[in-house]
Amino acid sequence: MFQTKIRLNFYDCDPAGIIFFANAFRFAHSAYEQLLEKLDYRVDPFNNDKFVIPIIHSEADYKRPLKANDVIDINITAETGGSTFTLNYEFLKEGTVHVKVKTVHVFVDKKAFKKTGMPDDFRELLIKTAG
Amino acid sequence: MFQTKIRLNFYDCDPAGIIFFANAFRFAHSAYEQLLEKLDYRVDPFNNDKFVIPIIHSEADYKRPLKANDVIDINITAETGGSTFTLNYEFLKEGTVHVKVKTVHVFVDKKAFKKTGMPDDFRELLIKTAG
Amino acid sequence: MFQTKIRLNFYDCDPAGIIFFANAFRFAHSAYEQLLEKLDYRVDPFNNDKFVIPIIHSEADYKRPLKANDVIDINITAETGGSTFTLNYEFLKEGTVHVKVKTVHVFVDKKAFKKTGMPDDFRELLIKTAG
Amino acid sequence: MFQTKIRLNFYDCDPAGIIFFANAFRFAHSAYEQLLEKLDYRVDPFNNDKFVIPIIHSEADYKRPLKANDVIDINITAETGGSTFTLNYEFLKEGTVHVKVKTVHVFVDKKAFKKTGMPDDFRELLIKTAG
Repeated sequence: MFQTKIRLNFYDCDPAGIIFFANAFRFAHSAYEQLLEKLDYRVDPFNNDKFVIPIIHSEADYKRPLKANDVIDINITAETGGSTFTLNYEFLKEGTVHVKVKTVHVFVDKKAFKKTGMPDDFRELLIKTAG
Repeated sequence: MFQTKIRLNFYDCDPAGIIFFANAFRFAHSAYEQLLEKLDYRVDPFNNDKFVIPIIHSEADYKRPLKANDVIDINITAETGGSTFTLNYEFLKEGTVHVKVKTVHVFVDKKAFKKTGMPDDFRELLIKTAG
Repeated sequence: MFQTKIRLNFYDCDPAGIIFFANAFRFAHSAYEQLLEKLDYRVDPFNNDKFVIPIIHSEADYKRPLKANDVIDINITAETGGSTFTLNYEFLKEGTVHVKVKTVHVFVDKKAFKKTGMPDDFRELLIKTAG
Repeated sequence: MFQTKIRLNFYDCDPAGIIFFANAFRFAHSAYEQLLEKLDYRVDPFNNDKFVIPIIHSEADYKRPLKANDVIDINITAETGGSTFTLNYEFLKEGTVHVKVKTVHVFVDKKAFKKTGMPDDFRELLIKTAG
């Protein structure tokens, strides 16, 4: 499991005074970026010659409202397939899960623009860091 | 079915040059707001004394990338339950589905802060406009 | 003068119920993108081999609050210098100026990464379209 | 002077691969929120019965590009007037100023909806914390 903390801002909220639902995916992605930094993979996953890793599916369940100034814990656990990996995020405030997010990522060969296998060393690092 | 069009902006894209996945939920919500305007319900669904309608679940499938300057068609079809409704969105570019989004909304009594039944006249308008 | 219309969304507002100040710059940029589309310049100003046009200064004056569902008129007038141009935006609601925005753009040579002169045909098109 | 740090995200960047200019105002506001938390004023400046403090002017100068994963230092210095205060922000990366932002805030009486004097104890706290 990978863990990080994020502070929620005033402008992440909507006129109802709570975090706008779409922003949960931003917070999740910020945590994902921090996970990738931690992996310290040999090429930049966001910018290299071999592959891109687009998100093909995302979903969120909103259990309790989050607000501005909240500092939430985000826990990520990763599951890997042949050419995809799924990240499961839990957003916790004072120990209680408020939002659950899931994102599914697929390795795509940059030249062929086709699905390709996940590099073995990426898989190992991902499982080691967030398995 | 409810239909609208949305222009995608440069700043909706990320450094990969395509629409950032989380923004699909913003576009969906913009279309939802336009659907609510069309409903012209007797009270403002976003700001009234009786109820709020928080989103409790959202998900998206990304089939083809979208880019800046794209003008997409968004089609919404609604399904209603006892106190919830589900909106299914299709984002089309040149007639082809690029992204599918789903949001689930629940009626919550503002005083009791508990799930409550959908008003009959809201249901009728929703089905008439986007059923 | 170049003119366009933009619809403001629920999620562009903050918990005070009005448009978050930073979003004025998003709306301005959306209008700028539409201006560039209208110019129909021979290369894509956002993606070509010769130059980039970063924004080096921006400012806004907030005179009256804007809200969700507002459809505003944005008027742009352009002034050109040797290697820069300035865009002045007025956001009008029901004929009254609510926000004024200014952005200053500079032509930068992509190889030398130094300020460079504005192409004459760009200047002509810009003045013709928004002068 | 008030100081904080902010991590910049992938999705804060545009297709040019650098931070989108409008997002500088988001980062500034996030730092401002953290300044207000530090002030620990007796009422919530964003939500109280007496006053609101809308931003009436904002501006930014972009000196060097910022990128995803950058962790920037934001320094804020405050100047106070009768009913307004101005915040000057410097965004530093590795000790070098990359962006300067300014925001001007005015105290408005919530009932009369007119400019009103800044409370003395607010002024004292602001000068003590960021003067």
